[in-house]
Amino acid sequence: MTQSPIRFLFPRRIISCWNPAAAASRRHLSSSAPTFRAKFQLSPEQKKIMATLDTKTGQVVDRAVLDSMLRRRLFYTPSFEIYGGVSGLYDYGPPGCAVLNNIVETWRKHFVLEEDMLEVDCTMLTPHEVLKTSGHVDKFADWMCKDPKTGEIFRADHLVEEVLEARLKGDKEARGQKVEVDAEKEAKKKKKAKSEAIKLDDAVVKEYEQVLAQIDNFGGPELEQIIAKYDIRNPVTGGNLLPPVSFNLMFQTAIGPSSNMPGYLRPETAQGQFLNFQKLLEFNQQSMPFASASIGKSFRNEISPRAGLLRVREFLMAEIEHFVDPEGGKKHARFEEVKDVELTLLNRDVQLSGSTKTEKMTVGKAVETGLVDNETLGYFLARIQLFLLKLGVNPGKLRFRQHMANEMAHYACDCWDAELHTSYGWIECVGCADRSAYDLNVHKNKTGAPLVVRETRAEPLKIEEWQVDLDKKKFGPRFKKDGKTVEAAINDLTQEVREKLALDLEQTGKIEVEVADVAGGKAELDKDIIKIEKRTRVENVREYTPNVIEPSFGIGRILYSLMEHVYWYREGDEARGVLSFPPVIAPTKVLLVPLSTNPAFRPQLQRLTTKLRRLGVSSRVDDSSASIGKRYARNDELGTPFGVTVDFQSVKDNTITLRDRDSTKQVRASEDEILQALKSLVEGEETWEDILKRLPEFTGQEVD
Amino acid sequence: MTQSPIRFLFPRRIISCWNPAAAASRRHLSSSAPTFRAKFQLSPEQKKIMATLDTKTGQVVDRAVLDSMLRRRLFYTPSFEIYGGVSGLYDYGPPGCAVLNNIVETWRKHFVLEEDMLEVDCTMLTPHEVLKTSGHVDKFADWMCKDPKTGEIFRADHLVEEVLEARLKGDKEARGQKVEVDAEKEAKKKKKAKSEAIKLDDAVVKEYEQVLAQIDNFGGPELEQIIAKYDIRNPVTGGNLLPPVSFNLMFQTAIGPSSNMPGYLRPETAQGQFLNFQKLLEFNQQSMPFASASIGKSFRNEISPRAGLLRVREFLMAEIEHFVDPEGGKKHARFEEVKDVELTLLNRDVQLSGSTKTEKMTVGKAVETGLVDNETLGYFLARIQLFLLKLGVNPGKLRFRQHMANEMAHYACDCWDAELHTSYGWIECVGCADRSAYDLNVHKNKTGAPLVVRETRAEPLKIEEWQVDLDKKKFGPRFKKDGKTVEAAINDLTQEVREKLALDLEQTGKIEVEVADVAGGKAELDKDIIKIEKRTRVENVREYTPNVIEPSFGIGRILYSLMEHVYWYREGDEARGVLSFPPVIAPTKVLLVPLSTNPAFRPQLQRLTTKLRRLGVSSRVDDSSASIGKRYARNDELGTPFGVTVDFQSVKDNTITLRDRDSTKQVRASEDEILQALKSLVEGEETWEDILKRLPEFTGQEVD
Repeated sequence: MTQSPIRFLFPRRIISCWNPAAAASRRHLSSSAPTFRAKFQLSPEQKKIMATLDTKTGQVVDRAVLDSMLRRRLFYTPSFEIYGGVSGLYDYGPPGCAVLNNIVETWRKHFVLEEDMLEVDCTMLTPHEVLKTSGHVDKFADWMCKDPKTGEIFRADHLVEEVLEARLKGDKEARGQKVEVDAEKEAKKKKKAKSEAIKLDDAVVKEYEQVLAQIDNFGGPELEQIIAKYDIRNPVTGGNLLPPVSFNLMFQTAIGPSSNMPGYLRPETAQGQFLNFQKLLEFNQQSMPFASASIGKSFRNEISPRAGLLRVREFLMAEIEHFVDPEGGKKHARFEEVKDVELTLLNRDVQLSGSTKTEKMTVGKAVETGLVDNETLGYFLARIQLFLLKLGVNPGKLRFRQHMANEMAHYACDCWDAELHTSYGWIECVGCADRSAYDLNVHKNKTGAPLVVRETRAEPLKIEEWQVDLDKKKFGPRFKKDGKTVEAAINDLTQEVREKLALDLEQTGKIEVEVADVAGGKAELDKDIIKIEKRTRVENVREYTPNVIEPSFGIGRILYSLMEHVYWYREGDEARGVLSFPPVIAPTKVLLVPLSTNPAFRPQLQRLTTKLRRLGVSSRVDDSSASIGKRYARNDELGTPFGVTVDFQSVKDNTITLRDRDSTKQVRASEDEILQALKSLVEGEETWEDILKRLPEFTGQEVD
Repeated sequence: MTQSPIRFLFPRRIISCWNPAAAASRRHLSSSAPTFRAKFQLSPEQKKIMATLDTKTGQVVDRAVLDSMLRRRLFYTPSFEIYGGVSGLYDYGPPGCAVLNNIVETWRKHFVLEEDMLEVDCTMLTPHEVLKTSGHVDKFADWMCKDPKTGEIFRADHLVEEVLEARLKGDKEARGQKVEVDAEKEAKKKKKAKSEAIKLDDAVVKEYEQVLAQIDNFGGPELEQIIAKYDIRNPVTGGNLLPPVSFNLMFQTAIGPSSNMPGYLRPETAQGQFLNFQKLLEFNQQSMPFASASIGKSFRNEISPRAGLLRVREFLMAEIEHFVDPEGGKKHARFEEVKDVELTLLNRDVQLSGSTKTEKMTVGKAVETGLVDNETLGYFLARIQLFLLKLGVNPGKLRFRQHMANEMAHYACDCWDAELHTSYGWIECVGCADRSAYDLNVHKNKTGAPLVVRETRAEPLKIEEWQVDLDKKKFGPRFKKDGKTVEAAINDLTQEVREKLALDLEQTGKIEVEVADVAGGKAELDKDIIKIEKRTRVENVREYTPNVIEPSFGIGRILYSLMEHVYWYREGDEARGVLSFPPVIAPTKVLLVPLSTNPAFRPQLQRLTTKLRRLGVSSRVDDSSASIGKRYARNDELGTPFGVTVDFQSVKDNTITLRDRDSTKQVRASEDEILQALKSLVEGEETWEDILKRLPEFTGQEVD
């Protein structure tokens, strides 16, 4: 009944699932939330290490080893597995759920509480009209091809990749070149495009390689041409496919009993924040700048999700919308605090030159040189890095990649992704975009709601301008049905044109105004109908639409990448895995183990549990009959940072031992001293090295 | 653009929305989650206070006053309001979101951490087959009537109530009796059934009253009869309606690109826990009993949701599934700790006698007398009460109502709802049911997954039993195509029948077995084909399906009821509302107010903020130019329990004042003393009375 986990997760193959044609088709939405895109222009070296991961201790591990451990320890599990499962849906078991909660709590403290952000909780059900306005109904889609005979559906870009890669591989074989064998891929050979050893023309090889390199840039029409030109078919049956059609990635439903209110599950948490802008501004006592924040599930109906926790149909997001005055350079009051934070940056020019060479630079310098567009954006990049490092992310596997001009929405000023390196390559885990005033504007224009800031000017603004007066009594009868059109055309006249017309009017007593939609294309007005004068207008209130800086976090992706970063195994034994979560993130902080199942240990265990709870340190007792070594090994896999052993000496003299997960070293001291040490370790006030210096090391009974 | 909040929320009326015909139609599912049902057999007195609430200080307040305050302070707001809103969908603004998070955190500590429950996070998207098996696809429905002319849709039971109540009111008017006027209802007169002053026969009045009293018990056919018999029509147009049809309350969608995987948004969080039972048991090292827990959103597509936060289409639930051995009386190891907790109980016999008289009883006695079915159920009732009181629920407005036999699913042993009294009447906020082995069994039977516990018996079980042997070589040719049917019938024979047949076989050398599906209805077997002997079977492993005790919390309902319970206003001024949340639940714990906007106060405010953050006490600064009184009044409405004022003396001598929200009394002391007092107050170690005793009261500048 339990399927092979690998087969279940990756029905066809791994690499191409990361090729994000979606990013191209979602371009105008992409910065509104992580499009969960990763770069897959892989170098041959990168391809070689594909599906393996290098641990923090320099070991090279097959990803399957980690994956099997994570499932065995119930960090996660396919949803509905006893019903055969549904691809792209996963449940988090107790340790996964605890880490997820800890990440969310850390996020809330690091961002929401630290900066008094206004957290909101908006509904997932969203009516059609809202997502029509935001652009998701029209543009949030991928391209898919159907096999009319078998009914199978392929994501078009993935299919092109798969087939062309298989042909290139066959070509290599035919030329007698060594072909990298991917064990996982081979295991699923039946399900994927067969690579037959057929030699290709050199020119064809080059064409294929070019197509693969640009696959992100192709939309439906280009994919259709490529499929036709290279005769790409169903890899299994060889059957012809229908042309690619656009498939919207939102889950649709109907709200209420009659079907007249179509709705969707939100694809991001941002829209609810935009719609409530006015109320939030009022709650914030009209004070700018401010940020809202939201943590919750979003949904994307991926065509064929693969790659485990990295591409799923239901996922936890945390999004911040920081609203800022577009004037004055988008300064940030706390920029000073972060300006010396050094980031690893991959800028857009480097990428356009075909390289992925990063450079290290302080945020201060990045903003100063204009590489990062403004202080507020820079501030959040630094804060994102500090957050990720707090979680235990490997700083050597973190980079910030700038979006290239064609990746960004036309309205965005600048956009950076925090990417974490995993066995799947570089994975976008956090997006940070300056979305300008786009979102507030589209909703304001659609609904008429004043999603704007009104500020009394310290000094009233005096504006000299050319104003037009129309004598309505004469104007109406003169232009009849064309009246409104002509009036609109006049109102739209620029100051320059008005100035010129004023002169004409003075000199000739009449003017001609171009009006596209009336007969002759012109309207003639004389001075008893129109007056154009230079006057001074006084503006006491300034009204503007704030710009939005949007840091957007894919919590599930961060969790998975983090698990790869903190995973390693004990010297020489791949079966003894360890997850070195920092205490703040670890599912449980302390494991309590009695030496044996002897009831004599129970009172002290009970007391320790109660005391630890009072100190706010989560603990678990393992009083099973397994050896102490086995019990610790189990908790190394669960990432429990500390262990306390209660033995017969404890019962006598009230001393206990404290074990450090990473070094397996132990100290022995009185119960109170150990509890105090634990609190201090868990709250990050002391390190294990500090404890080793001040409490006596114990080299007794760690038994494997 | 902003609509009247009242009109928006309650398109027709308030009272009948609480009449839960849904509970009847969902009977067989009802204990799986709060069906959010409230009793509306109201006494005349209760009806009078309908739409008003009595505060903890004994004030009687129009609910609209509280509601307007909650919206103004952004505890909640209709979702998508700038698009006209969607009924039954609400967003939580910053204070609502904070209270919600605090309730969830308290729940997690009180239940999950306290008892080492296994928290899981399962997907909301759920494939059809799972909910078909659970019974939701067939039975999770309400009855609705459509007006074929206008296209309007009515929930059938609500409609019957509305029309009959209007007629009864008209009758009263015609008889010259005083009619209670509900201001809110009157304001919406146009939208609801008109009550014309028409006198009814006494017999008809009685019939109507009987129908209304039993409305919970009617299904579709009964509602159809009533609608025909009493000529119930569209209250506005007078048009005839189509007969009631069943409307499934789940939101449907399609998972994946082809429409071949229909799915739903989960209507409760329980199913994911049942499906993962086997893995959870393994995670728990095969140890029983244990509980899983889940916190997350669920969805119900209500036909016409009204009553604000109490009946919504998307809501936060927290559910526990406690798995227990059905043998041995379902004892609970920690029952002793709670047995003296006194509960207010409304038992089923009292309800059947037509009364709602409660009695106070300790959990210990309730279990001992059999009123509460077993210790585990009793344990959770007590724990639920302790949880609700921790949140600040008014103990005088909490009762536990036992389900009547016809309310419970046939498989359930016992079920109690924790109900909170609000201006809408008694509201079910937590359900606590013993669901027996139902859920695990249906999924086990459907999928074949072993959702069971296997326990090695301490003593092998020896069972003396009559066993049957068939000589397959002769049996097959003898019965040919009927072979399987006959064999199944023989295997199904009871021990008693086997014993009798063994005797027959011995005496006559042959027997006859009844087999319904073969010609003649009997199969004859002689002793060379069948042997029946008494033998001893030894069973080393016991296999059983655990029973489930399910406490299920509607977090949004608890939040709303709590807000009614803690609300009151300052003597003589309805405009000065206060929400007396306990510190642990309050959105913000401390308000920091400088005497004025003078920059001299800033360094100390900054220092206080930092120190409070280090103490884990959330605070906010209000340095707006409003008077101190106004700033405190605003924070009384937000439920902030403590306030600190920084004035010119503070700058000089480092003393600050601390204000208690509920009494508005203040003390003055050094910064360190006040901070220490705050920590102690927020952590519940001291009360305000304790502080008053040890720090000097300050009667200076509270300015209104």
